[in-house]
Amino acid sequence: MKPKKKVRIAITMGDPAGIGPEITLRALCDKKIANSASFVILGDYGVATQLQRELRLPFNFHIISDIGRMNMSEEMINFLNLGNVTFPIPYGKVDARCGKAAYEYINMGCLLLRSGTLNGLVTAPICKEALHLAGYPVQGHTQILAQRFNARYVRMMFVAGKVRVVLVTVHVPLAAVPGLITKKAVQDTIFSVSRDITTYFKIKRPRIAVCGLNPHASEGGLFGTEEKEHIIPAIAKARQQKIKVEGPFPADSLFWQAKDGAYDAIIAMYHDQACIPFKTLYFDKGVNVSLGLPFVRTSPDHGTAFNIVGTHHADPSSMKEAIKLCVEMSANVPRKRKKIKVYVPNQDRFR
Amino acid sequence: MKPKKKVRIAITMGDPAGIGPEITLRALCDKKIANSASFVILGDYGVATQLQRELRLPFNFHIISDIGRMNMSEEMINFLNLGNVTFPIPYGKVDARCGKAAYEYINMGCLLLRSGTLNGLVTAPICKEALHLAGYPVQGHTQILAQRFNARYVRMMFVAGKVRVVLVTVHVPLAAVPGLITKKAVQDTIFSVSRDITTYFKIKRPRIAVCGLNPHASEGGLFGTEEKEHIIPAIAKARQQKIKVEGPFPADSLFWQAKDGAYDAIIAMYHDQACIPFKTLYFDKGVNVSLGLPFVRTSPDHGTAFNIVGTHHADPSSMKEAIKLCVEMSANVPRKRKKIKVYVPNQDRFR
Repeated sequence: MKPKKKVRIAITMGDPAGIGPEITLRALCDKKIANSASFVILGDYGVATQLQRELRLPFNFHIISDIGRMNMSEEMINFLNLGNVTFPIPYGKVDARCGKAAYEYINMGCLLLRSGTLNGLVTAPICKEALHLAGYPVQGHTQILAQRFNARYVRMMFVAGKVRVVLVTVHVPLAAVPGLITKKAVQDTIFSVSRDITTYFKIKRPRIAVCGLNPHASEGGLFGTEEKEHIIPAIAKARQQKIKVEGPFPADSLFWQAKDGAYDAIIAMYHDQACIPFKTLYFDKGVNVSLGLPFVRTSPDHGTAFNIVGTHHADPSSMKEAIKLCVEMSANVPRKRKKIKVYVPNQDRFR
Repeated sequence: MKPKKKVRIAITMGDPAGIGPEITLRALCDKKIANSASFVILGDYGVATQLQRELRLPFNFHIISDIGRMNMSEEMINFLNLGNVTFPIPYGKVDARCGKAAYEYINMGCLLLRSGTLNGLVTAPICKEALHLAGYPVQGHTQILAQRFNARYVRMMFVAGKVRVVLVTVHVPLAAVPGLITKKAVQDTIFSVSRDITTYFKIKRPRIAVCGLNPHASEGGLFGTEEKEHIIPAIAKARQQKIKVEGPFPADSLFWQAKDGAYDAIIAMYHDQACIPFKTLYFDKGVNVSLGLPFVRTSPDHGTAFNIVGTHHADPSSMKEAIKLCVEMSANVPRKRKKIKVYVPNQDRFR
């Protein structure tokens, strides 16, 4: 891989009591990854040096404690030291101070993104309970970023290799899902996915597959009406706009057919419909992407893994993939565009 | 594999216009399978001879047209010729005559099972619409068999290798699922699965994993209440009865962990929760098993595949696995037991 210095990526270290710092450093010890973009780690350098000693990691950062001294133009990994962790760290435990520190890394990321210094953000795992204890009653990264950037239509995408799955509904009870599957919701998702796949992956007319909601995609109405009333009309509407979209397919056989890249994106109706096949196929390689923000944001598809912190066996695979994907997607966004266009459903256009 | 002649299995040929006859014959051309039990094919010999010519299959059946002449005691494959197919066969089409023929094979299977001649039944795919056209308004094999044998608590299980998944609800709209997940339904399923795994697979105290209903198994109540109100109490009740059962687990990561046989059975709450990971992992090797009938019944985990009939490229893998599993499960049922015990939830005991 030739060094591409055109994109600038920030990586937040996540909860210091979790595996976030370890996977961040391990991932950046990979020379190919380290050379693929200009990076800035947002974290605590005390945590990093302790990990370096324990893991004997060979890294060489440009340590800065002041945002003004950051050098994103050259081939180097900046380390913006927020110095906000008190030792000893309560490894593997939900801790308010760690929650506060993790929040401050994200906060700094938002500041840098707002200032236009960065193209993308990779976030290491945080612990929701720790954030709550620290006085930040948020659901997670996506909610914080959506609020800060006033993005109302953020959608979750999972990526592994050529498989990309986008969700219509996310963290809601299963009983609430059928009510949320409206023609508008499905149609909006198809439109924004079509646009985003073109922008971020340079695929001109992406092939999109849409899952049904019910068993066998309701088999012509035998088991449910959502396909007929909402999903099929939404697909028809998108086809009128020349979007290459097919379905609704029975979700149980679709993923087997799509795992070798038969489609550029799959639209799933609910959390487990996407996450079950995705985690079954790509447990340790998946990347979580937030679509609809004015920058690229990726994260590894796992949590803080409190149960293995300190064993020094955290697997950085998913973090590596998250960084690679953030670099790839950011590099594909046209340079001249100051902001990534975001689909605005009500106005049926992009802003 | 040593020839085991203790079990006697009937195989229905399925819809003559589908791939049923082809996969049945191809599967039995495998000498290991053919020698593993005494078989009787219930079908039309005209269809078989035509396939033999076209596919150049080497088979040697004991053709009978009268049930009294069947010889299930020796090492042979009986072919009970019902002679109920008119030529030319409308390959790949929904046809009333083919539906009628397929129904008659199942009917004959029921008669033989009732008479105690058989230990198990393997069914090749049928076409529901063809059955409807022929005047049999049934949902499929399971419904026919359940009605004939007065079995009220038939449950669907998918098996591939060491992975066994049993469903609490099957072919219902997703919107109806949450209402059907009651403590009683989950508890009954755990009890009957525990018993059936012991009976059919000789596993003394099977380890059972139960899926949650909601994303992340509701993450402590954040996304839904069914886990707390129904699933957790059902698991607690089963544990009191010394059943080794764990959960509720988030369904998205469970199947990745369980694919190497960490559990003897997984209980899924709804169709796609079981079928998505199962088909994603074992698309062409899965077997469908009906639990709760007074005999063993298996079938391949696919349909009539009307789109490929006549190309002579039907894959018999799933049919082979279905036959092997039927032989294995039937052989494990104690000989002296006249009827397989069936769990009766209301009386909390087996009959």
